[in-house]
Amino acid sequence: MNIHQLMRELREPNTTKIVMLVADGLGGLPQESGGKTELETARTPNLDGCVREGVCGLSLPVLPGITPGSGPGHLGLFGYDPLEYRIGRGILEALGINFQVGSRDVATRGNFCTVDAKGLISDRRAGRPTTEVCVAMCKKLQEIQIPGMEIFVEPVREHRFVVVFRGDNLGDQVNDTDPQQVGALPLQAVGANDASQNTARAVNQFVAVAGRILKDDLPTNMVTLRGFARYPKIDTIQDVYGLKSACIAVYPMYKGLARLVGMDVLEAGTSLADQVVTLRKVWDRFDFFFMHFKYTDSTGEDGNFDGKVEMIEKLDTIIPQIRGLNPDVFIVTGDHSTPSRLKSHSWHPVPTVLCAKSCRPDQVVEFGEMYCLRGGLGQFEAKHLMPLAMAHAGRLAKYGA
Amino acid sequence: MNIHQLMRELREPNTTKIVMLVADGLGGLPQESGGKTELETARTPNLDGCVREGVCGLSLPVLPGITPGSGPGHLGLFGYDPLEYRIGRGILEALGINFQVGSRDVATRGNFCTVDAKGLISDRRAGRPTTEVCVAMCKKLQEIQIPGMEIFVEPVREHRFVVVFRGDNLGDQVNDTDPQQVGALPLQAVGANDASQNTARAVNQFVAVAGRILKDDLPTNMVTLRGFARYPKIDTIQDVYGLKSACIAVYPMYKGLARLVGMDVLEAGTSLADQVVTLRKVWDRFDFFFMHFKYTDSTGEDGNFDGKVEMIEKLDTIIPQIRGLNPDVFIVTGDHSTPSRLKSHSWHPVPTVLCAKSCRPDQVVEFGEMYCLRGGLGQFEAKHLMPLAMAHAGRLAKYGA
Repeated sequence: MNIHQLMRELREPNTTKIVMLVADGLGGLPQESGGKTELETARTPNLDGCVREGVCGLSLPVLPGITPGSGPGHLGLFGYDPLEYRIGRGILEALGINFQVGSRDVATRGNFCTVDAKGLISDRRAGRPTTEVCVAMCKKLQEIQIPGMEIFVEPVREHRFVVVFRGDNLGDQVNDTDPQQVGALPLQAVGANDASQNTARAVNQFVAVAGRILKDDLPTNMVTLRGFARYPKIDTIQDVYGLKSACIAVYPMYKGLARLVGMDVLEAGTSLADQVVTLRKVWDRFDFFFMHFKYTDSTGEDGNFDGKVEMIEKLDTIIPQIRGLNPDVFIVTGDHSTPSRLKSHSWHPVPTVLCAKSCRPDQVVEFGEMYCLRGGLGQFEAKHLMPLAMAHAGRLAKYGA
Repeated sequence: MNIHQLMRELREPNTTKIVMLVADGLGGLPQESGGKTELETARTPNLDGCVREGVCGLSLPVLPGITPGSGPGHLGLFGYDPLEYRIGRGILEALGINFQVGSRDVATRGNFCTVDAKGLISDRRAGRPTTEVCVAMCKKLQEIQIPGMEIFVEPVREHRFVVVFRGDNLGDQVNDTDPQQVGALPLQAVGANDASQNTARAVNQFVAVAGRILKDDLPTNMVTLRGFARYPKIDTIQDVYGLKSACIAVYPMYKGLARLVGMDVLEAGTSLADQVVTLRKVWDRFDFFFMHFKYTDSTGEDGNFDGKVEMIEKLDTIIPQIRGLNPDVFIVTGDHSTPSRLKSHSWHPVPTVLCAKSCRPDQVVEFGEMYCLRGGLGQFEAKHLMPLAMAHAGRLAKYGA
């Protein structure tokens, strides 16, 4: 009996509403010994109010010590065990640009790179071209044809694009062609089984032709492909929890993740204010709202402590507008920590607060890593957050007589 | 390697004694924002004493967010993963009235109900008849015969009774005949496989004949059956932990649960005082004593905050008598929370204290939900309580060289 089976069995329809606000990379670290984290430093009167009324704790995105990427981080929050549900990078990229991946497709993430006269990679990201260049180069690659197969090349941004190979009997057990270092040749693709060999042959043809087409387009004169992946079969949030769910996110990746679990991906504009407008507009149409805020992560990745503090404070200012809609359950959490001191995702547990009428009080009065340690949710695996949300929303029946 | 395998491998015989006192539905919620829970409100000098000497924490009966019924709640406390061991309602009811369910039996819970002239259910509980009426009506139903099968009809109380179908090749994948609403006809039983179809045919015959027999016995003029279940094969507490175990409970359901895991179910009278007398009397004969106190749950279900406080205080007064017997490990916990504010079982973690000489102190000095948050046991799944009891009783060897 896994948690999804349990949810299907116990879930009960009602009209309660759940809002999950994900501040990407929310958790942090103090800049120096004895200092405070970004969240502890930020002035967050509205989040502190949530903590006072609700129950808080620390979410372990995967398991102790495991640093997740965006994919596993969000799947956990959506209640999908990130060790059970593995989503390839190619699929994530394709979903993020709204490419409708189908069952005969293998998707892969492409990078424009620079190679020297000997074909050795000198810049793995081709000096980060503009997105306009990316679009133009992709257009050139769209001419590539391989018999018995459809090929789609779609720009993402800067040096990144997506290639989808569509055909019969294509496997995704194919190695990345990116050698992950400069001074090396792009790798040949090799398939780990017959179906994946079919893919690998097409990949090698594609890369060879791309190299000829881009020959004179320095610095974007070559490509590498990685994260080959087929579309996984995933039960939707509606299937599992009986929730009509909406994604209100700005960035493609998070829209893609939400689409993967069957959320309606809404037009959400480009800012928190836009997102709140969307939330208000669709409030009556959904049970579950996933709102995503990117900039707590990107400032963390930039190593910008003060910037991250500022972004947290900015997030805090929109909390009253969300709570003004009277969600029955309001959750603020992150998909992982991104301490600006580390300039990267990390394994540290993520501060989380859940606000509902049925919360048991825990005396915590401020939102922050240290305070959450004393919270009533304790330290919990992220995959348990959705059952907690369902319980506090009155949407779960009793288990067993 | 599951926990039971581990216990079998590591357990060591000795003469230590473990008492587990289960205050049903112990956990609660404050009545109003800023208030205290029932347990935090109650004056509990003796339980506080246990907390000072022992180690406390919060038990998650199943998983975060999951509200258990009595069955899963107790199985967890006895160290049986409630998601792995699922016990049907029919079996629980049969065990509760001391009916010896066998391997050829399918047990089901019966309800007397009232139907109108068209056969539509007008009262699903037949106006809650007295237990005397229940006994009399069951006597009538005991006349029902179905060829090739034995049928047992036994009263429980009020509108509730048990029917056991005994025969060859009977399955328990049969739907409830209770439509769970008034104004509807009782449902026909349908089996999900051949063996269950055998059961379903007998069930439909039984219900048809019962309807004829009870025709003139308003309001108990019809029956519904639900929770069809065969007796599960469960390793006993003796098998798993090597403990000779005794159940000292007043209510049938809990006796049934104890019998299911192989405890000796003792005559325990009708009150805490009676239960303590029994405990004293059999002290030398057992290693493990499960004592059950019902009224913390029933007052919670009634929404009676003050009543629950009073019952907790009552429970507190008998603690010295139990501890006077010098158990090596003394545990007070609950099978789930029953906040009087919710008038129902809930998912909130359950305050738990374990007292033994080998406890590591945790500086908690009072028994209550908030205090237990700071306890040395942390938040733990209920199924881990028995290994903790075994360890503190010196009954577990080292794992690995």
